[in-house]
Amino acid sequence: MQIKEMVMLKQLVLETIKNKELINYGEGIVVGISGGYDSVCLLHILYSISNELGIKIYPVHVNHMLRGDEALRDENFVKSFCSSLGLEVYIKHIDIAKKAKTEKISLEEAGRNARYEVFSLVAGERGASKIAVAHSRNDQAETILMRICRGTGLEGLRGMEYKRDNIIRPLLDADRSQIEEYVNGIGVEAVTDSSNLHTDYFRNRIRIDVIPAINIASGSDITENLLRLSKIVVAEDDYLRYNSELYYQKSVLSERKMYTELDLNVLDEIHQSVRLRVLRIAIEKTCGTLNGWGYIHLDKLNNLIENGRTGAQIDLPHGVAAVKSYGSLILKEQGKEHQEQFEKKLIIPGETEIQRFGLIVKTEIYKFETNKSCRQFINNNEKVNTKFIDLEKVTAMGENLQIRNRRDGDIFKPLKSNGTKKLKEYFIDNKIPRQVRSTIPLIALNKDIVWVIGNKISDNYKVTDNTKMVLKITFIQKKKN
Amino acid sequence: MQIKEMVMLKQLVLETIKNKELINYGEGIVVGISGGYDSVCLLHILYSISNELGIKIYPVHVNHMLRGDEALRDENFVKSFCSSLGLEVYIKHIDIAKKAKTEKISLEEAGRNARYEVFSLVAGERGASKIAVAHSRNDQAETILMRICRGTGLEGLRGMEYKRDNIIRPLLDADRSQIEEYVNGIGVEAVTDSSNLHTDYFRNRIRIDVIPAINIASGSDITENLLRLSKIVVAEDDYLRYNSELYYQKSVLSERKMYTELDLNVLDEIHQSVRLRVLRIAIEKTCGTLNGWGYIHLDKLNNLIENGRTGAQIDLPHGVAAVKSYGSLILKEQGKEHQEQFEKKLIIPGETEIQRFGLIVKTEIYKFETNKSCRQFINNNEKVNTKFIDLEKVTAMGENLQIRNRRDGDIFKPLKSNGTKKLKEYFIDNKIPRQVRSTIPLIALNKDIVWVIGNKISDNYKVTDNTKMVLKITFIQKKKN
Repeated sequence: MQIKEMVMLKQLVLETIKNKELINYGEGIVVGISGGYDSVCLLHILYSISNELGIKIYPVHVNHMLRGDEALRDENFVKSFCSSLGLEVYIKHIDIAKKAKTEKISLEEAGRNARYEVFSLVAGERGASKIAVAHSRNDQAETILMRICRGTGLEGLRGMEYKRDNIIRPLLDADRSQIEEYVNGIGVEAVTDSSNLHTDYFRNRIRIDVIPAINIASGSDITENLLRLSKIVVAEDDYLRYNSELYYQKSVLSERKMYTELDLNVLDEIHQSVRLRVLRIAIEKTCGTLNGWGYIHLDKLNNLIENGRTGAQIDLPHGVAAVKSYGSLILKEQGKEHQEQFEKKLIIPGETEIQRFGLIVKTEIYKFETNKSCRQFINNNEKVNTKFIDLEKVTAMGENLQIRNRRDGDIFKPLKSNGTKKLKEYFIDNKIPRQVRSTIPLIALNKDIVWVIGNKISDNYKVTDNTKMVLKITFIQKKKN
Repeated sequence: MQIKEMVMLKQLVLETIKNKELINYGEGIVVGISGGYDSVCLLHILYSISNELGIKIYPVHVNHMLRGDEALRDENFVKSFCSSLGLEVYIKHIDIAKKAKTEKISLEEAGRNARYEVFSLVAGERGASKIAVAHSRNDQAETILMRICRGTGLEGLRGMEYKRDNIIRPLLDADRSQIEEYVNGIGVEAVTDSSNLHTDYFRNRIRIDVIPAINIASGSDITENLLRLSKIVVAEDDYLRYNSELYYQKSVLSERKMYTELDLNVLDEIHQSVRLRVLRIAIEKTCGTLNGWGYIHLDKLNNLIENGRTGAQIDLPHGVAAVKSYGSLILKEQGKEHQEQFEKKLIIPGETEIQRFGLIVKTEIYKFETNKSCRQFINNNEKVNTKFIDLEKVTAMGENLQIRNRRDGDIFKPLKSNGTKKLKEYFIDNKIPRQVRSTIPLIALNKDIVWVIGNKISDNYKVTDNTKMVLKITFIQKKKN
């Protein structure tokens, strides 16, 4: 009877390994072993299927030096258990209390960090490609419930993964009771993993008090229910991740270290929940991590998109600033100005496109026998995105008109003004925010600005009584598909 | 100080009412009042803003007859409290214990059902368009935690809604402590709602034991964390719902009471998590409810789609059967056969489309001077979806070829067989499942079947040595966009 159950657990673990593709034939595997039931069971099962899978097993035990004699007892147990299987165990003593104090982190965190550091070290030395840890389905349920209690989103409800980087969890489908029976079945007295009972206070309260109390009061099995919720969330969240990646790709205009630019038109049209995920992807791409970022920052970013004025800027963690620019949201280093340059010869007559910014500039020529007909274009300035200029004044210099953003040394004589000034001064006079100046498209003749698009044209090229040919310039901001 | 906090709570409730559009100007509102703090607070706040909102308030108290004197004490308190506000209260005595016993439901369920029945009754009598109930943000967090414990998906994590049908929850953003302070502030001794302490055992354990224990052990506020999770889930779930509705519309071929047909090509191409939601929509449309349906049934349905053979059928709750048909999944009444008829004249030469089934039948004519050239088409049967028949044999009768599904009385003489038989017998002989027979497209000349598409042609119309004109018929199953 007991043997039948042991075979069943082994079978279950083999299925998990196969279905989740945890182990490849012939791999070396570091197995963390505390001496508690879970890790003893894991090591024994992996040992017992090592020939079948052609795997090489490297047990690793970390003595946390927290509990003196008890820790030594655990260490000795692990030694003798491993040697009974003919396995050599790698043992490392680390003063976790000291580490926790030095690094100003909790004992649990220090212990966990130390263990994974040692596991990785041994894996590197032995050429092992995987590190197996012994979390059970009960650990999984506890982890999820702890995250719910401490605050989480869908991400946290997914629970621990069967495989993440080189960490694998072959026991994640196994129940703690099955594991204990298995260990009893092989005739081994695993140590009562006393670290469980002391170091992670919150987990122990969840395990020992909260879950049993809930099960009694609800008359149902919260472990089962949490794991089912987790499975549902994994499926739903995978779909949302997939969709968000699609929309990120659709919205991204520019992406490099500490600089990401997203198309506001795309951000505008996508559902709020996907938009927040797109922003998270953008943040991670910009500063390489999501650590230190919370819902409050996403909210601020989202608010900037929805309600911010063009040019508005907010400061965010990791020295990142967000700017709402013309048609785009820019994530960049605080204090650094956006200086992506673009420049294209203006096609006359015809359409010139700056794909990167989703701009089209259309030009048409109006030619007249007498200049009287041109008079209708004088002072015709009511449309923001359509302007008329004197074509002959432009072509007189033998140079081509350009559509571009600003350069150092640009000059501008605004319509009806007396003198030429630096473009920068014009921007300052007109209170155009520093952050967006480089995103404003300009029509230029060398350094002389002909039209600050969305703003004034130059007095130098205006239509007058003497104009014989009018160039009509229309600016179109394309919607991105 | 106390007054300031009372004003703040009133302000908060007003904002909830405004943001969630709970109340329209001038509406009549039934307010459920137990005499406990929450409902006393709700009634008082609604009363105090009734002039501002032009609303008419109808307090309703249901005496559950569960606690004798105590219940009477509550009733009397409610009476005097309402009369102090100049409001007439509607009071109804219902023997909840008896109701629970008769209907074989729990006391909580019987109580809840009874209350909402009375609220609706009074709303109808008084022409009130809303029913206000006094759930607070703590109730919300408790509800979500209870659902997590007992098992839920994203749906359950959304929590109670601010507005559902005509039920509104104006206190859903208010904290229990604020509510108690408010009630103390107006100088009223609300009854300790003793029903809370007795009827819903599980909720009370969650409220009194579990949540405080978790807060102490985790050092954080689980109520806050659950509510934030709920907000995240609402946003994510809304998006998934929206998407699923889109995909349902994309996949549905036919929809009526106890009959829904979905395009398998569409179901195949969508993400698993959205597919399960599409199936839920289909189930709800088919049998009008999701009660009695669980994950196990969705799993079975999903498995039928992924692994079932054409013609496979499973029985599901509410007398629903699911059939995997040619190119579609059918949800229908158990035992009832699918009999949706389609029929169209075959265009020769040209293309005939049965849009409903995503079918195209293409015909081409090959005409020859000598019949020798026709010989290549004799016994040319290797392609399942392309057949050749003698055009003159078809047109000899002066009738048109039809593309349709089967009718009673159809006859068929399979190629190379000796005699004509009923089409039904042919289906039986060839083990074509009963459930899919009506979905098989046929080429027919009156009652005589020319080609069972995907199967044999008729011996009557085959190409022979004497054939002068060949009709090539190609069957195309379109992918739906």
